[in-house]
Amino acid sequence: MEFKLLGTDLQSQARAGLITTDHGQIETPIFMPVGTVGSVKGVLHRELENDIKAQIILGNTYHLYLRPGLDVLKQAGGLHKFASWNRPILTDSGGYQVFSLADMRKLTAQGASFRSHIDGSAHLFTPESVMDIQRVIGADIVMAFDECPPGDADYDYAKKSLDLTERWLDRCVQRFDSTEPHYGYSQTLFPIIQGCVYSDLRKRAAENVQKYNRDGYAIGGLSVGEPAEVMYQMVEVVNGILPKDKPRYLMGVGTPENILESIALGVDMFDCVMPTRNGRNGMLFTSEGIINIRNKKWQNDFSPIDPFGPTFVDSRYTKAYLRHLFIAKEMLGPQIASIHNLGFYLWLVKEARRHILEGDFLAWKNEMVKKVSRRL
Amino acid sequence: MEFKLLGTDLQSQARAGLITTDHGQIETPIFMPVGTVGSVKGVLHRELENDIKAQIILGNTYHLYLRPGLDVLKQAGGLHKFASWNRPILTDSGGYQVFSLADMRKLTAQGASFRSHIDGSAHLFTPESVMDIQRVIGADIVMAFDECPPGDADYDYAKKSLDLTERWLDRCVQRFDSTEPHYGYSQTLFPIIQGCVYSDLRKRAAENVQKYNRDGYAIGGLSVGEPAEVMYQMVEVVNGILPKDKPRYLMGVGTPENILESIALGVDMFDCVMPTRNGRNGMLFTSEGIINIRNKKWQNDFSPIDPFGPTFVDSRYTKAYLRHLFIAKEMLGPQIASIHNLGFYLWLVKEARRHILEGDFLAWKNEMVKKVSRRL
Ligand SMILES: [Zn+2]
Ligand SMILES: [Zn+2]
Repeated sequence: MEFKLLGTDLQSQARAGLITTDHGQIETPIFMPVGTVGSVKGVLHRELENDIKAQIILGNTYHLYLRPGLDVLKQAGGLHKFASWNRPILTDSGGYQVFSLADMRKLTAQGASFRSHIDGSAHLFTPESVMDIQRVIGADIVMAFDECPPGDADYDYAKKSLDLTERWLDRCVQRFDSTEPHYGYSQTLFPIIQGCVYSDLRKRAAENVQKYNRDGYAIGGLSVGEPAEVMYQMVEVVNGILPKDKPRYLMGVGTPENILESIALGVDMFDCVMPTRNGRNGMLFTSEGIINIRNKKWQNDFSPIDPFGPTFVDSRYTKAYLRHLFIAKEMLGPQIASIHNLGFYLWLVKEARRHILEGDFLAWKNEMVKKVSRRL
Repeated sequence: MEFKLLGTDLQSQARAGLITTDHGQIETPIFMPVGTVGSVKGVLHRELENDIKAQIILGNTYHLYLRPGLDVLKQAGGLHKFASWNRPILTDSGGYQVFSLADMRKLTAQGASFRSHIDGSAHLFTPESVMDIQRVIGADIVMAFDECPPGDADYDYAKKSLDLTERWLDRCVQRFDSTEPHYGYSQTLFPIIQGCVYSDLRKRAAENVQKYNRDGYAIGGLSVGEPAEVMYQMVEVVNGILPKDKPRYLMGVGTPENILESIALGVDMFDCVMPTRNGRNGMLFTSEGIINIRNKKWQNDFSPIDPFGPTFVDSRYTKAYLRHLFIAKEMLGPQIASIHNLGFYLWLVKEARRHILEGDFLAWKNEMVKKVSRRL
C-alpha cells in the first residue's frame, strides 16, 4: 500500500491524499461503507460501484469468521471473490464485536475467549489467530487485534487496557510480518491507537505505534458515548503526533458533522454503520439537513428525496413515496434510504477533498456543518 | 387499449399478441410482477425496467386504498407518478384481499363491508366505489369487483357467488362507463370470470361477460387449492368460449410449469407473488430447475446463481454467496433472489412468445416443463 499526500489545508489540518492498493486507488478523505458479513445491508454491489461510488468497503472479521467461515472464504479465493467486490477491502480485527456482541467472553493475556452470539460455540481470538483469519479473508488493509475498553472506563482500567493492546500489537506485527498473503496481492496492517479519553494515554499510544512504521494508523475507542468535543480533543492529540505521510483512520465515526470536523483535524479515513443503520430506520442525511422520512410532514411532499443528491434514487423518488414505503413497511424503503445515505456520505467526503485541494476547505466546512446537522 | 393477435400455435392454443396502452406496449404472453402497495418488494424500479424488463406491473387496490390512501394518490397524480413507474399498471379490484386479509367482513347485495387489517377502521367496498378508487389509482387496466369464493366452495355456494359477481359486474360496467379517467390517459375495465371448479358455471360466466364487449377478460378464483389438472380444465372451458381477439388474464398463477401449461391453453397474461415471495424465502426458479438456496449443498458451490440467467445478479453472484446471505439473514439475499426470479419469469414468457411465433412452441414447452419443475 502506498499513500501520497496531495495537499494540506492552510487553515486547518485537513489533508487530501491518494492510497494505492493492489485492488485500486482510494482518494482521501474517504468514507468506507460497512459490509458486515460481506454485504452492505440492502445495497447491491453494482449500486456501490456505479451510484454510491464507494472506493473501499469494510468487512467485520468477527462476523465473517463465524459466517460463512474460513473454509468457505478460503475456497472462494478470499472475500473479494466471494462477494464479487474487486475494489479495496478493509477488515476490522473483531475485537469490538467480541467485546460487544459475543457471549461469555473472557480476557486473558493470551487473547479473548468467547461464545458465538449465533450458536453458542466456543472460540478463542488471539493476536496471532486474528492475523491469520484476516490473511484468509484477504482484506487489503487489516487491523490489529486490540481490547476495546468501555466508553466510561476510568484511568486505571484504560491504562491497563492500553498495556494489553500494546503487547497484543507487538504480537500482531510479529505474526503478520512472518506470514504471507494467500491470494497473490499484498495486504497491510494498521495498528490501532487506544487510550480512551485520556490525553497522556493517547499520546503514549500514538508514539508507541510508530515504532512499527506501518502504512497507516487507526484511532479506535472513540464515538462510544463521550461528548463530541472530547473525541475531537483526542483526535487532535493523536494527529499531532502521527506522521504526516501516513493515512489516519478514525474508526466507527460518525455523523456528517463528526466527519467534517474530523477531516479538519487531519483524519483521512472513516467508517460508520450510521448511513445504513439509520437509513433503515428512515433517517436521511442530506446537504440541507437531516430528514426523518417517517414524519407526517412528508406525506404529501412530492418533491424529490434530495434534489441535489448524487444518486438516481434522490431525483427519481419523492419524499411522499419514500415515506409511504416506510409506513407500509416495504423493504424498498430501507433500500432507497441506504443508497441515498451512502451516496451522500461519499459525495460529502469527495466535496471535502475538492475544497481542500482548492484551498477553501475551512469556510466550506463551517457552512456545511451548520447545514448537515440541522433537522428538516 | 388495443390487442393485436400476432400468431397462434398450430399444435396448441398458445397465442402471441401485442397490447397497446397509453403507457406503452405489452408483448403477450406476459408475466406481471406484483407491486402490492406501489412497490415490487425488494426491487428498485430501475431494475424492473432495465434488468427484469417488466412491461406491466400490478397494484393491489385494497392495499393502496388503505395506504397511502386516495388523497395522497390523487395529489400525486395517480400511482404511475407516485411510484415513478411510467409503463402500464393493472390493479386488482380488492375483492380477493377483502375476503382473505380484512377483518369482520360482511357481504351484502350492496357490497362488502370490512375492517382494515392495519388499524381496524371500517370501510365499505361496492362495485361503484371500487371503480371510483381504481379511477383515482389510475391503472391502465382495472378489474371488476367480484366475490372470491373459497377454493372448496360447493356447487350451491359457487352458483350463488357467481350470481352476485354477475350482478356486481353489471354495476361495475355501468359506473366505469359513466366516469372519466382523472389523469388524461385512458383506462379499460376487465370483467372477471368466476365459477369455482364447476364447468357449467365457468361456461355461463364466460358467456355472460361477453355481453359487455370489453378489451380483455380475466379468469379468477383458480390456483386456490384445487389440483392443477382441474385448473387447466377450467381454463380450457373458459378459453373455448372467450373471443380470440381479446387478451385473457389468468389471475394469481403460478409456477413456471403452471404458466407454460396455461399459455398452451391460450392464456395471455399472468401475475403471481411466487417469484418474489418464494424468492424472499430462498427459492430460485431457473431454466434448469428449482433451487432451495438455503440448502447445505450450495455452501461451497462457487458457480454463478444461474449461468444462463438473463439478469446481472445471475452471473455476478455465486450460489455459495447467495446461500451465505440467506443463512446470515442479510436483506441482500431476498433482493438478489427477487431480481433473479422475476428476471427468469419475464425471460420464460418471452421465450414462450418467440417459440409461438417461430412455430415450435409445443415441443419447447414440453421440454421446458420437465426442466423448470424439477428440484435441483
Ligand atoms: Zn459509527
Ligand atoms: Zn400466485
